[in-house]
Amino acid sequence: MRSLVGRSYQHTSHQSRSYASQYAASCEDTPPQEIDAPKENVWYGLTDDETADVAKWLFGRPELNLTSTEDAGEWDNTIALIELNRPNKTEAIPYLDGSGPAPTRYAHVRLNNRATVDPYFADLLVGPLPISNVTAWEALEFPYTRKTQGQVRNVEPDGETVYSEWLFKISASIADITLDLWNGTALGLENDTLDIWGIDPLWQDDGRIVRWDMFWNIAGDQFDSGTLLPLGLYLKSDVTGRDPSQWKLLGWMYNDIFYETTEEFREAYWSPGFVKLKPNVDGAWAHTDQRGPVPPKDRKQPPVMVAPDGARYSVDTERKYVEWMDFSFYIAFNRDTGLSLFDIKYKGQRVLYELGLQEALAHYAANDPVQSSVAYLDSYYGFGPYAFELLKGYDCPSYASYLNTSFYKDEETHTHVDSLCLFEFDADYPIARHSTSESVSVTKNVYFTLRSVSTIGNYDYMFSYNFHMDGTIGVEVRASGYIQSAYYANNQDFGYQIHDSLSGSMHDHVLNFKADFDILGLNNSIELVSVVPVTKHFSWNGNKTRNTMQLDRSFIASEDTSRLNWSFNGQTQLHVVNTAKPNPFGEPRGYRILPSSGTAHLTVLNSTNLAHAAHWAEYDVQITQHHDTEPFAAHPYNSQDIHDPPVNFESFFNGESLNQTDLVVWLNLGMHHVPHTGDLPNTVFTTAHSSVAFMPMNYLAGDPSRETVNMVRVDYSGGAATAVETFGQSNGTCRVSVTSVEDELWKYQGDVVVRKFPYDPNDPFYETDSDA
Amino acid sequence: MRSLVGRSYQHTSHQSRSYASQYAASCEDTPPQEIDAPKENVWYGLTDDETADVAKWLFGRPELNLTSTEDAGEWDNTIALIELNRPNKTEAIPYLDGSGPAPTRYAHVRLNNRATVDPYFADLLVGPLPISNVTAWEALEFPYTRKTQGQVRNVEPDGETVYSEWLFKISASIADITLDLWNGTALGLENDTLDIWGIDPLWQDDGRIVRWDMFWNIAGDQFDSGTLLPLGLYLKSDVTGRDPSQWKLLGWMYNDIFYETTEEFREAYWSPGFVKLKPNVDGAWAHTDQRGPVPPKDRKQPPVMVAPDGARYSVDTERKYVEWMDFSFYIAFNRDTGLSLFDIKYKGQRVLYELGLQEALAHYAANDPVQSSVAYLDSYYGFGPYAFELLKGYDCPSYASYLNTSFYKDEETHTHVDSLCLFEFDADYPIARHSTSESVSVTKNVYFTLRSVSTIGNYDYMFSYNFHMDGTIGVEVRASGYIQSAYYANNQDFGYQIHDSLSGSMHDHVLNFKADFDILGLNNSIELVSVVPVTKHFSWNGNKTRNTMQLDRSFIASEDTSRLNWSFNGQTQLHVVNTAKPNPFGEPRGYRILPSSGTAHLTVLNSTNLAHAAHWAEYDVQITQHHDTEPFAAHPYNSQDIHDPPVNFESFFNGESLNQTDLVVWLNLGMHHVPHTGDLPNTVFTTAHSSVAFMPMNYLAGDPSRETVNMVRVDYSGGAATAVETFGQSNGTCRVSVTSVEDELWKYQGDVVVRKFPYDPNDPFYETDSDA
Repeated sequence: MRSLVGRSYQHTSHQSRSYASQYAASCEDTPPQEIDAPKENVWYGLTDDETADVAKWLFGRPELNLTSTEDAGEWDNTIALIELNRPNKTEAIPYLDGSGPAPTRYAHVRLNNRATVDPYFADLLVGPLPISNVTAWEALEFPYTRKTQGQVRNVEPDGETVYSEWLFKISASIADITLDLWNGTALGLENDTLDIWGIDPLWQDDGRIVRWDMFWNIAGDQFDSGTLLPLGLYLKSDVTGRDPSQWKLLGWMYNDIFYETTEEFREAYWSPGFVKLKPNVDGAWAHTDQRGPVPPKDRKQPPVMVAPDGARYSVDTERKYVEWMDFSFYIAFNRDTGLSLFDIKYKGQRVLYELGLQEALAHYAANDPVQSSVAYLDSYYGFGPYAFELLKGYDCPSYASYLNTSFYKDEETHTHVDSLCLFEFDADYPIARHSTSESVSVTKNVYFTLRSVSTIGNYDYMFSYNFHMDGTIGVEVRASGYIQSAYYANNQDFGYQIHDSLSGSMHDHVLNFKADFDILGLNNSIELVSVVPVTKHFSWNGNKTRNTMQLDRSFIASEDTSRLNWSFNGQTQLHVVNTAKPNPFGEPRGYRILPSSGTAHLTVLNSTNLAHAAHWAEYDVQITQHHDTEPFAAHPYNSQDIHDPPVNFESFFNGESLNQTDLVVWLNLGMHHVPHTGDLPNTVFTTAHSSVAFMPMNYLAGDPSRETVNMVRVDYSGGAATAVETFGQSNGTCRVSVTSVEDELWKYQGDVVVRKFPYDPNDPFYETDSDA
Repeated sequence: MRSLVGRSYQHTSHQSRSYASQYAASCEDTPPQEIDAPKENVWYGLTDDETADVAKWLFGRPELNLTSTEDAGEWDNTIALIELNRPNKTEAIPYLDGSGPAPTRYAHVRLNNRATVDPYFADLLVGPLPISNVTAWEALEFPYTRKTQGQVRNVEPDGETVYSEWLFKISASIADITLDLWNGTALGLENDTLDIWGIDPLWQDDGRIVRWDMFWNIAGDQFDSGTLLPLGLYLKSDVTGRDPSQWKLLGWMYNDIFYETTEEFREAYWSPGFVKLKPNVDGAWAHTDQRGPVPPKDRKQPPVMVAPDGARYSVDTERKYVEWMDFSFYIAFNRDTGLSLFDIKYKGQRVLYELGLQEALAHYAANDPVQSSVAYLDSYYGFGPYAFELLKGYDCPSYASYLNTSFYKDEETHTHVDSLCLFEFDADYPIARHSTSESVSVTKNVYFTLRSVSTIGNYDYMFSYNFHMDGTIGVEVRASGYIQSAYYANNQDFGYQIHDSLSGSMHDHVLNFKADFDILGLNNSIELVSVVPVTKHFSWNGNKTRNTMQLDRSFIASEDTSRLNWSFNGQTQLHVVNTAKPNPFGEPRGYRILPSSGTAHLTVLNSTNLAHAAHWAEYDVQITQHHDTEPFAAHPYNSQDIHDPPVNFESFFNGESLNQTDLVVWLNLGMHHVPHTGDLPNTVFTTAHSSVAFMPMNYLAGDPSRETVNMVRVDYSGGAATAVETFGQSNGTCRVSVTSVEDELWKYQGDVVVRKFPYDPNDPFYETDSDA
């Protein structure tokens, strides 16, 4: 039976009490302590000078035939990216763990070579840096599974021409219809009220490049509601090659009827009995501003977290290095995937060499050709450029501290000020508690968060990395912003009707994260521990059997069996362990990976939209042996050649051993999103949420949260407290000014751009651009 | 392609700014507004007077042959419980929704009838109340599936005798061994250093009642660490019947060797080569107090949530009725299951008639006979009596407001002051946000929580009901406190070794909740919406097929197919809808039920420990037609007759229609817990967590969080903000005193008891008892 009664132990006299002063001083909102990182941040990025020097050096290579972006047209070669080429892990580890020099620095350059009838992107390596007479460039090929000198075709090299010479002209050819249906035209003029855009990736079968586009109403106000205004007319074009005169209009679709030519469509349209469907029209329903009756008492100021004693963590702002309690890590940031963390240590031991986003897929499905064909691979757009300044007091607590991020674009280094935030937070629940019959003990659950938000077009992804006093690390993504909707007609099997002519277009979000664990060294193993039902004999039970359960423990031997899904009823735990480092009881020390809220992998099997471009999306957890040649799960231009993408994740799996080797865990977060009326105007973060946690597993002797002083034990007897033990925690009293953050918000900047080529170090901030 | 560029819309002049005063007044910590509930709380409980009157009336029924608890021995009949018998839903609804009188009040009485060789518990109904000459008692049978006049046998009627006349005597008979092994004895003396206790439920096969007990070290300090101190010696007894002289010692087990008699065990023990195993010994490792190096900066005060404008919700303290924003509900509380909510309304419409815990199972598995046989059904102990006073600033924010709870025990009404807390909290993330190229809009995520904590022996269950501005309701349980461990020897397949001689004994927690949804009326249906992969032809795609996905929508017709598990990859959504109340677009309005963190049902199949006592634990979600005769999923004495329990949940499923009928959703939360070193001394709430959310689904025209004023839109252009729209939200400035809560903690009371029989209304608080 339950042992319900604790042993008796009584205190009879009150200990001294300290009463809070009514006239306390103001609390001190001290910033994080500035410290020096133990090592250079070898992952963060190039300095402004390095970027400028590389740009200048590249323009001095005639063989590259580069044109500055400002002067370039569709038939010029331009620089798409200059970034740090992050060092190979095999080079970084000796530097981190030894006393050798930092790895040699190289730039990763991406060229957009369009001065050819066969345009392509090219990844180059430029170095060593700083620029010297031994600096050279070479094709960057080794990190990609496809060995084509780091080159991948550009299937949409003529973005402007596609509009000016193709879509707007086609649209003009049916202006009679667009005017009749929607009283608007899409002609590329300032006063257009219609927009045209469509699928991504483009269709790439049979050697042809085919696009489907669609008419949309343009939002009538400042709100970004355009993706809620589809109009249900679709057109198909073959845009293979670079000569618009060779492009072909392949047909129209309206109300699930396909017309092979404009003439056929027009004839049908103006025939009696043609069914005309209603448009989606912008309005308050699609706007994010406050509207409707204000809930009771909502005008009173709500609760707010304050930090009375200021920041309790330390930062090397220059090196982007952070220490909080017993955790430390370096921050990296790049164009393709935004925020990453490197060298995450806990209690002085590395737990993860690298942790960060690899790619985000938004795979739609519909009866209509546009939404059916959309499967965004968002690193194509880049998470770095769209990680905007965070809104203080709203995206992060008002007392958070911030870091800037920078990214390369068009020979410029853009800086988003305050686009990463760091803060501590006291959870609404304690980390541990217990009541006995004579005392109660409770420990606060104060955790630390690093956050960025990337708004990729319509969607806002909030990425949070959370660190807890029990040694747990959380990886969390939430989605808000506007859905990309579908026109409702004939889409009943692909979403709910959510407004007049609107379907909440079903889609899967799958976001892949690289978690390069190093548990007490590089060489680790993956243990699976399952809770399984069994019928069993026991020595004490004669010849009767019992229906019970037991543990089933096994290791993943190799990459042949390392593509996994979270198990039925959560019965299988996944641990990253170091079997060579058992604890005193013989259990391998490690970290457990567990889904802490819903996760998802891709529903679609063998997606026609994706072909081989996103095999990483097919399972929940996948483990590979680490190789410097397999640093990323995806390439931002996988969408440009889906049948033979630069990085085909599937080819990482070639039977290599996972037994005490350096291994990488690739994790998918995500949601199956079938938008309903509550997604209007924006999806809400409360339920659009996916997260995993990494928790110590037989890693330490006990729960490390026992070390915090922010706990209390109250002993009681006879209806009164007899002792209040606060363990030396701060008991000062001070007064926090709680104020509207409106003043802070007036300091919001938007984008700040540093021009890089030609580069004037004396005037780095001469141009601003609020449209990144 | 992604529509990345918003339309241009510029503000050129700054609007007026309000600067915060440096000399602001103190914030006003106003309590919740006291209001009158629209109806009486017909679920909460009996008044003190009603309870006293019923007790007195019962003692006036000679046919019941009752003895007051104080005077009762093991061979007397006593009152185990006097509580309100909650009204049938069919009676409550007309009162709630009409203008009729409140349902007639009845007491639910539970007698512990031990003045017989066949002792039994008996559920009675006493009423109508108040007591009058028409008041009568009858057997309470209708809410239970077993029709035996509300009676169930008591398999452990002689708790004291089992110790005094049996276990301690047996223990004395092997004192030579216990002294040799552990230098201790268990004789029932004050200075015992050993404890003996064992399985629950008792074995109930072949008409025999058999118990396994085990030796434990007694914790040496005030900490509740006894469940961490198993010693690995087990004894088996047949305790059938009430005559100790007929009880039989059936054997001993030590180190996986079974000995049929004490003599056999002793002979082996004192033979050469007998392997003696080490004990588990109490120590700091098992204590919850702070220990170890204090983490850097941890002595600085951490962030803390404050409520500068006081409570923004309203309470009818007397009627236990709460209104927050557009939500309202009544609170009920009882012995068996603690906290429940009734008549949860959102925007004036009932969403749930009832929401609350039904039962909590902790099913262990082991190689040893004690842990193998343990499957606690915690309502036997009761969640009400163990819902202790909450620790302010630790269990709930310091500004939370509190309600008392009361429960009946031994003719007394016990009151736990401040054992329910209510508070608002600002999440660490917003509820919605979106950035465009010229503005950013973010809305705060302020939510409301009702919480209680029940400590059932070693384990602390924290129950939180959360309400969000988007209409979402969350049900959340976290587990902390001490694990019940196993002795390590031969338990390798049932847990990790986590300390010297200790196994973290594997177990499943499964907690069942009743969610009686009423979406826009009583009659609802369950829709399943699955995201499924398909290969499909489309009108616009010739004869080629595409690999994509679509929705598969269906309804659960009847109870024949209504026992469900959460689906593979989360691909199936479950909606409670009212098909007779479609929204303007033809979609049925409803609420979606989704797991918001891990859930679990029982791993064990056809558990030998449970037999038919907990069929509710076998699936994740189960739906039945509502009947007044099926109000609870379990009965607290199901453990007393596991083969034929008072409530056999399985028998609820008899093929009844679930098509637009009043239905009840029974949901399981839980965790598969394989304790590791990090569970020492206590399991942590961070990862021992399970929750579901109920979210509006096509229920309103849009996201209701648009109604709050606690949002902001910042427009920007040219690197500066051009407008800050705060929608009329509070912009006052005030100063909050942030102080140690130590003074508050000195007010902690523990238990307060009101003696009921004999009852002196003039001196209700004359006895206190810190050992509930």
